[in-house]
This record gives sequence, C-alpha cells and structure tokens, in this order.
Amino acid sequence: MNFVGKSSWFMTASRRRRYLVGVSGGADSVALLHLLVDAGFSNLIVCHLNHGLRGRPAVEDAKFVKRLADGLGVKCEIGQADVKSLMAERSESVETAARFARHEFFANCATAFKCKRVVLAHHADDQAETVLWNLLRGSHGFKGMRELQTIITGSGVMLEMIRPFLGARRAELIGWLNQQGLRWREDASNALPIAVRNRLRNEALPMLSEISGRDAAFAFARGAMNARQQEELESWALEQAKVLDPQGRLHLPVLRTLPVALQRVALRDFLQTHGVISASQTLIERALDLLDVKNPAAVNLPGGGALRRQSARIFYQEPI
Amino acid sequence: MNFVGKSSWFMTASRRRRYLVGVSGGADSVALLHLLVDAGFSNLIVCHLNHGLRGRPAVEDAKFVKRLADGLGVKCEIGQADVKSLMAERSESVETAARFARHEFFANCATAFKCKRVVLAHHADDQAETVLWNLLRGSHGFKGMRELQTIITGSGVMLEMIRPFLGARRAELIGWLNQQGLRWREDASNALPIAVRNRLRNEALPMLSEISGRDAAFAFARGAMNARQQEELESWALEQAKVLDPQGRLHLPVLRTLPVALQRVALRDFLQTHGVISASQTLIERALDLLDVKNPAAVNLPGGGALRRQSARIFYQEPI
Repeated sequence: MNFVGKSSWFMTASRRRRYLVGVSGGADSVALLHLLVDAGFSNLIVCHLNHGLRGRPAVEDAKFVKRLADGLGVKCEIGQADVKSLMAERSESVETAARFARHEFFANCATAFKCKRVVLAHHADDQAETVLWNLLRGSHGFKGMRELQTIITGSGVMLEMIRPFLGARRAELIGWLNQQGLRWREDASNALPIAVRNRLRNEALPMLSEISGRDAAFAFARGAMNARQQEELESWALEQAKVLDPQGRLHLPVLRTLPVALQRVALRDFLQTHGVISASQTLIERALDLLDVKNPAAVNLPGGGALRRQSARIFYQEPI
Repeated sequence: MNFVGKSSWFMTASRRRRYLVGVSGGADSVALLHLLVDAGFSNLIVCHLNHGLRGRPAVEDAKFVKRLADGLGVKCEIGQADVKSLMAERSESVETAARFARHEFFANCATAFKCKRVVLAHHADDQAETVLWNLLRGSHGFKGMRELQTIITGSGVMLEMIRPFLGARRAELIGWLNQQGLRWREDASNALPIAVRNRLRNEALPMLSEISGRDAAFAFARGAMNARQQEELESWALEQAKVLDPQGRLHLPVLRTLPVALQRVALRDFLQTHGVISASQTLIERALDLLDVKNPAAVNLPGGGALRRQSARIFYQEPI
C-alpha cells in the first residue's frame, strides 16, 4: 500500500475530521474505504448512489456497500437517482447527467451531515483516461483531475473533492485487496454505459501500450502531474508580470509585452476573478483579440457580463 | 493551398536565397517542391536519399525525383546510404540509423552547395505522430518538431531545418496535388519499415478519432503548437527569475524560491549553455536533487563534465 504514501493529503489529514467517502462497491472505492478505516479515519460517512441505470445488479451493489459499511462500523447513506430522466430533461449525455446526479447527491449528503469534504477513489488509470479524453476534446495541453479540487454543484453547494489515489495504479489497488483477502463488486465501478471513456480505457490505452512497448496510462497520468507543476509556473509568471492596474483592471501596455501563452493565463485568471470559472478556449481566444485595437472593443461573457477595452485597459462589466 | 499561409517562413522568406529541399518522391515532399517553385523560390536544390532499404522501388523513387526536378529546372542531388549496415555498426533502430544517414547526406549537400538551410515536408499528421510517440516515451508534456530548428549533425555540420507544412494536413496536400493534376510516388514517404510510427499513424490515431468522434491528429498537433508558446512563457519566466550570479553560476537561494517546473527550466537552460543539448528527464531530476544539501554535491554529465554544488551555487565543471 505504498501508493497512499504518494498522497500528502492521506499522510497528513486529520483522522478525527469528518469525511464523506464515495463508494460504488467497485475495487477502487472499496480499497479506498478499507485504507481510510485502517489508517484510523474515524468519522467517515459512506455515500453510495444508485444511478438507476443498471436495474438488479445496481441494487446488489447498494446492498454490498451497506453491508461493507456496517461491517466496518461506518455510517452509510444510499441515494437513488434517475439518470435516464435527467438525460432527457437536461439533454445531456449519460456521463454528464450521471456526474450531475452524483454531485447533487453529494451536495445533499454535505448538507445533511454538515461536511463538504468528499473523498473519491479516482486513480492514475482514471486520470489517464480523463487526460486523453480532454485532449481529444480540445484542451490546451494536459488537463486532468486534481488531488484537491473545490467545486460548486448545480444547486450551489460547495464541495471539496479529495482524490488521494491519483498516484496509484488500479492494478496496485486490486493487488492490495487480493493480498488482504477483501472482496468487491466486479462491475460496480465500470458499470455506467459511458462508451467513449470505456473504449479509451479498454481499447485505446492498451493499444498505445502495445504499439509503443511503454505504459501509455502512466505516460498520460504523468502528463497531468507535470501540468499541475506547469500551472504553478504560470501562476508565478503571472505574479511577476504585474498586469493589473491599481483599480484591478488589465493594463494593456503591460499585457502586450508578454508571451501569448502568458496573455492567455492573465485573461483566464482575470475572468476567474470575475466569476467566469471555466472559460472555454474559444472565449479566451476572443478575449485575446481585445489586445488589438483593430478588433471590436467588447467581448460578451457567459452570465451576461462583458470584457471591455477602454483607455488602454481591459475591464469587467457586470451584467446589466 | 491556404496551408502555406500558416507558415510565416513560407510567406516571408527570400525567394532568391538558396535552399536545399528534401524530396522523397512521396506526396508531401512533391507538394512542397511544387509549391516552392510556384511561389518563386528560384535557387532550390532537390536532395533525395536512397536509404538502401527498399531495393528496386527505391531506385524508381530516385528516378522519379530526378525527372521531376529536371522538369522544373531545379538542381538535383541523389544520395545513396546503406542503413542496414549503419544499424549494425551503430546498434541503432532503423528509425535512428535512417535519420543519421539523412542528416549526414544533408550535411554533405550543405558543404557541397554552401547552404545550411534544408526545407522539409513534415506536416501536421507527422507532428501528431511525433508528439504521441514522444509522449509515450516519456517527454514532459507535448514535444514535437519545430518550424525552424537548428541541429548539429554527427559530423559536426550545422543545419537549419525548415518545416513550413507543420500547420497543414496530409489530406490538404494530397487534395492540392490532385487538383493540380500532379503526380507522386505512392509509397515513397511511408516506405521506411518504422513499425511503431506507422502503427501510431495507421492504427492508433484513427482509433482515437473513431472512439472520440474528434480529429485526434489535429488534437496532438495543436498540442505541439501550444507547447511552443508554453516554451516562450517559460523563457520569459526564466528571464524574470534572474537565477544566474555575475559569474554565470546558478544562485541556489534564488533557485529554491521558484516553482519546481521553473527550476527544471533553469537547469535545462543552464545545461544547454554548457553544451549538454538535450538533457534527459532523468538527468534533470538528478540535477534537481542538487538543490537539497542532504544530497551528494555533484552530478556527472554526458561528455565527462559535471554539475557541482558549492557555496550556495551550482556551477559547471569542464571534463578533466
């Protein structure tokens, strides 16, 4: 279990603090729950959501998780969603609707148990899939999950997602479970019919490994780790750049002297400050156009606000 | 042919200057030669190497290229290598030995024709393969080919590689050739038995596109472009960091305040200054260990030199 040593959260977090733990019943989350209990975490609440997508087997998953939690003396909350209806209502893919349902379930648990911290079992192989999928969908560079990540759910609840296993391989987790003689539900974690991700996991990454004779999942997961360090470099560079004027507006004569990649960082950061949390690439490129006086002097933002260029500054205009 | 508009080199380079042009006879390099001639480049020398790997068809390729160059009124130099013997002599893969042979051939042409500039037909699909392959082999982030790149060949000749097609798709080039009614040798550019790269091109990238419903080659090629801009950001940040003391040594108290990704950039740059051109990841990580006084105070470098930590500095020690 040297994989938990790679997580500074796991090594240093208070054992008495309360944590919600997402447990599907699959190997990854079962290993997570056992390891937390073994490490002395004494105020855990197991949270399990039945997505309503898999009928009988999903009911068995929930029973398994309940028995597991009971056996470990850990509280357990079982939720029920109807992801199919959600997909129809929200015109979303199964992946997006299922994530929405999970976040709302965690939000309800967070409110009920007065605890916004959610520990999740995502590991390096999940990270590799995420990175590859984001890359194919057009992310600038590697974009993966973070060990600590604050999100705001659709219903406005803040959650702190904690992922201590991002440095661990799925095979390590399964090896540990086998060694300890522990059981899990084979299908529970792979169970959602998320075709693209399953195919990236089961076909694309193995093929890349086979062709190259290298561990493709490791390569992509490492890419995500390096990307995090790259972000620290970017934040540092942004601080050096001093792009804000005393009124907190972007100072164009300064901004124009910076490399374009740093201009993007500055614009993304500026938008974030003003509540535009995850600006798309397209939006950033349009914001970048503001630097050139030949282009229109305003860019509309999601949410109704705008970026405006005036007197050699870019400022944020509140929604009217 | 709007793809040439993406190359600032192509748009602005002097039409009267001399250039060597690598022409295999395949679609990519045939398109390159025609486009250069059409654009008014009037001092070209076609360079074609027979790698000695494909017998009769390779001889036909050379004849085709010679006829093409003659027809266009362009000088043509045909070289002959024996890559199989090179592989044995140098214990190298066919890919590495073939590249070595090509570089030596270009070096000979550069000397003979007093021209160090070599225009090559690598395009966005080649770039995607290169990026993916480097990624699987362990590069930090995206690492691809550059539009302008200076290399020093094994025999010590400096060459300036120029790749105006990195923003163009192979399909665009072929579309243009067909539209113009121009001919090429079908097998010439895919001809080297480089199994890994061919499988990345013919199996992995198409599979990733099929799974994701996105253009995987485009995603990886764009990654390489962003990575170039990222490097500019890094260089800018390194300048701000002022890590060198007046004697040109790395100043540890400054270095230690930087984000780790920028420490890596500083060490890589420092090694490059002292002639260690492409430091491996492993070497950079060992150099990084020098920052911690608990670690040994020296790291040996390829070529016989060393990095040493002394008096809160890291300095370069020449080979003894």
